[in-house]
Amino acid sequence: MENFTFKNPTEIIFGKGQIQTIAERLPKGSRILVTYGGGSIKKNGVYDQVKTALDGYTWFEFSGIEPNPEFDTLMRAVQQVRDEKIDYLLSVGGGSVLDGTKFIAAAVPFEGDPWDILAKGAEVKQALPIGCVLTLPATGSESNGNSVVNRRSSHDKLPFFSPLVYPQFAVLDPTTTYTLPRRQVANGVVDAFVHTVEQYLTYPVDAKVQDRFAEGILQTLIEDGPRALEEPENYDVRANIMWSATLALNGLIGAGVPQDWATHMIGHELTALHGLDHAQTLAVVLPAVLHKQREHKRAKLIQYARRVWQLSGTDEEALIDGAIEATRRFFEQMGNPTRLRDYDLDETIIDPLVAQLEAHGFTALGEHGDITPADAKAILRLAA
Amino acid sequence: MENFTFKNPTEIIFGKGQIQTIAERLPKGSRILVTYGGGSIKKNGVYDQVKTALDGYTWFEFSGIEPNPEFDTLMRAVQQVRDEKIDYLLSVGGGSVLDGTKFIAAAVPFEGDPWDILAKGAEVKQALPIGCVLTLPATGSESNGNSVVNRRSSHDKLPFFSPLVYPQFAVLDPTTTYTLPRRQVANGVVDAFVHTVEQYLTYPVDAKVQDRFAEGILQTLIEDGPRALEEPENYDVRANIMWSATLALNGLIGAGVPQDWATHMIGHELTALHGLDHAQTLAVVLPAVLHKQREHKRAKLIQYARRVWQLSGTDEEALIDGAIEATRRFFEQMGNPTRLRDYDLDETIIDPLVAQLEAHGFTALGEHGDITPADAKAILRLAA
Repeated sequence: MENFTFKNPTEIIFGKGQIQTIAERLPKGSRILVTYGGGSIKKNGVYDQVKTALDGYTWFEFSGIEPNPEFDTLMRAVQQVRDEKIDYLLSVGGGSVLDGTKFIAAAVPFEGDPWDILAKGAEVKQALPIGCVLTLPATGSESNGNSVVNRRSSHDKLPFFSPLVYPQFAVLDPTTTYTLPRRQVANGVVDAFVHTVEQYLTYPVDAKVQDRFAEGILQTLIEDGPRALEEPENYDVRANIMWSATLALNGLIGAGVPQDWATHMIGHELTALHGLDHAQTLAVVLPAVLHKQREHKRAKLIQYARRVWQLSGTDEEALIDGAIEATRRFFEQMGNPTRLRDYDLDETIIDPLVAQLEAHGFTALGEHGDITPADAKAILRLAA
Repeated sequence: MENFTFKNPTEIIFGKGQIQTIAERLPKGSRILVTYGGGSIKKNGVYDQVKTALDGYTWFEFSGIEPNPEFDTLMRAVQQVRDEKIDYLLSVGGGSVLDGTKFIAAAVPFEGDPWDILAKGAEVKQALPIGCVLTLPATGSESNGNSVVNRRSSHDKLPFFSPLVYPQFAVLDPTTTYTLPRRQVANGVVDAFVHTVEQYLTYPVDAKVQDRFAEGILQTLIEDGPRALEEPENYDVRANIMWSATLALNGLIGAGVPQDWATHMIGHELTALHGLDHAQTLAVVLPAVLHKQREHKRAKLIQYARRVWQLSGTDEEALIDGAIEATRRFFEQMGNPTRLRDYDLDETIIDPLVAQLEAHGFTALGEHGDITPADAKAILRLAA
């Protein structure tokens, strides 16, 4: 096992009827900005529950944070926060709203151009406190310090991390996910699955608990992901997916083990340049990464085949191929095709995409830092 | 899945060479009390590492905290803290030192008789901050708000909980466990195992991730527990046990599921009245609890048999018996006999012990709250 530090200060409030408890957790006298997306929270009753819970508080709202939140949109919220002297942000929605809210929290007190937080990795020295009501299990953003922000004008999709933007609390009520569109449910399951794989399918360091926790999350998503599509109001299915997605990216399963993240980094460019959903990009890129890196990942791929997919036999190549094929079929079962051609993209996109990856500085990806731009091209050709 | 809240603010600093980092985490200008036990930390080099790390701080020490920490001992430390105006406690040792330190932290600012925290469940309204260097993986105390304190004069062993006594940080360096006596290693593994079982072997609530996390901890302890006895300086084995023991009782696997704890409550009386090690009491009581409660626990016992012990077949009674027997053999393999008679105790101890259990108010134990004093007697007869 590798050395690690692990701290996760977010309070999780999980279950039916929990939105009302946010009032106990917001400092009295706060000036709160409620951030949200396209308005689905007004249709499913979440907005009204939040409004009721905020009775007695001074609060404002900022709507219209997009999937893949846009820098320009978020900077308008930054202006509103400064103008209204807001001191607490309450994100209501999915991972994109929350990622955007984290950026707002860091940008408000930032000295200089907040774009530098993303483009230059400028240090975040302070941030507004954040609370969250999560309505879409997927990104794990509700219990980590990660954020990804888009800038369409320059085709950028860039991440930042700061311990200062962990939500102070996150309300996870599985019933709020009953009315999600099928595509968002499926995307969320694929996203959580690939988050887990990025921290698991590397090379063995004899970290037995981390491996088994990761396998437990993957098996749960495999069992309950398809059921969430078939039985949208099955509470336990929704609860298992929601808790899995949080645990997939709250730092726990990645503590003390190598991490990959090549699939995410290549996938981000696919979203930025061609507008694919985040989960679609993962479904396309991951099987190709596993094929390309099969020697580096051999031992863990075999463990994954046996423990997660219950494949048997002693032919290692067959186990590895079987596990990659099972992964592909699972993504397709969740409505995410796994080839570039399924999205009307051909090999002509590869060179410009990898040029963008290089421009963003991602020239040494993967758990060994040995995936070069040439390797990224080979991966994308395998995904064609 | 049941509703839950989960928050764990402790920072874990895990791995070789991490003790030196405590200086970064202690507030400058603190007056620190280093608490420890019988002096093993002076033999294994941990005391010297702590001393080096504390260079520049004003610090004091309090030694002699016993296994099953004694109320009277701890009250002497409380006096020292008050006299020396100490404002930070640094626990160096195992779970008993840390449990004792938590009590000191709560007792110092307590108005009234601190015994009431244990005997009457008096509310802890403030506590001194605590840091910890853990040298014995077992209790999970390094990352929770639990403490158990003994008072020999009245044969009491009583727990308290407060969110205010979570350690702010916990250094877990597996190399500090290399020189532990065999009996302490074995006891720690059994303790962590039973902590996990108390939160897992109840009744199903379709909490798939929690179940798999618990199973992952149990399997790791089964694999690496005996290896820790055979290969005391195998780093990864020690690391897996240390991280498993923390995760077994940091609130995670118990979030959203029923919990039992009957084995612990009955076991505490065995320690208080007859001086058995905590883990010995668990090894004696758990198999008997599982036998007695086999109908209530049927579904989970079968899952435990199949997933943790890899037993197969369709005869449910055979699966359950097999799982209980495998548990018993594991405890015995770890050097903990599983019958009262193995500790020279016979059935005459049962009535006085259960009277004490009743006197402490534990008259409705288990996940259904239906284990009466009469049932506790039946359990102890099964353990004879």
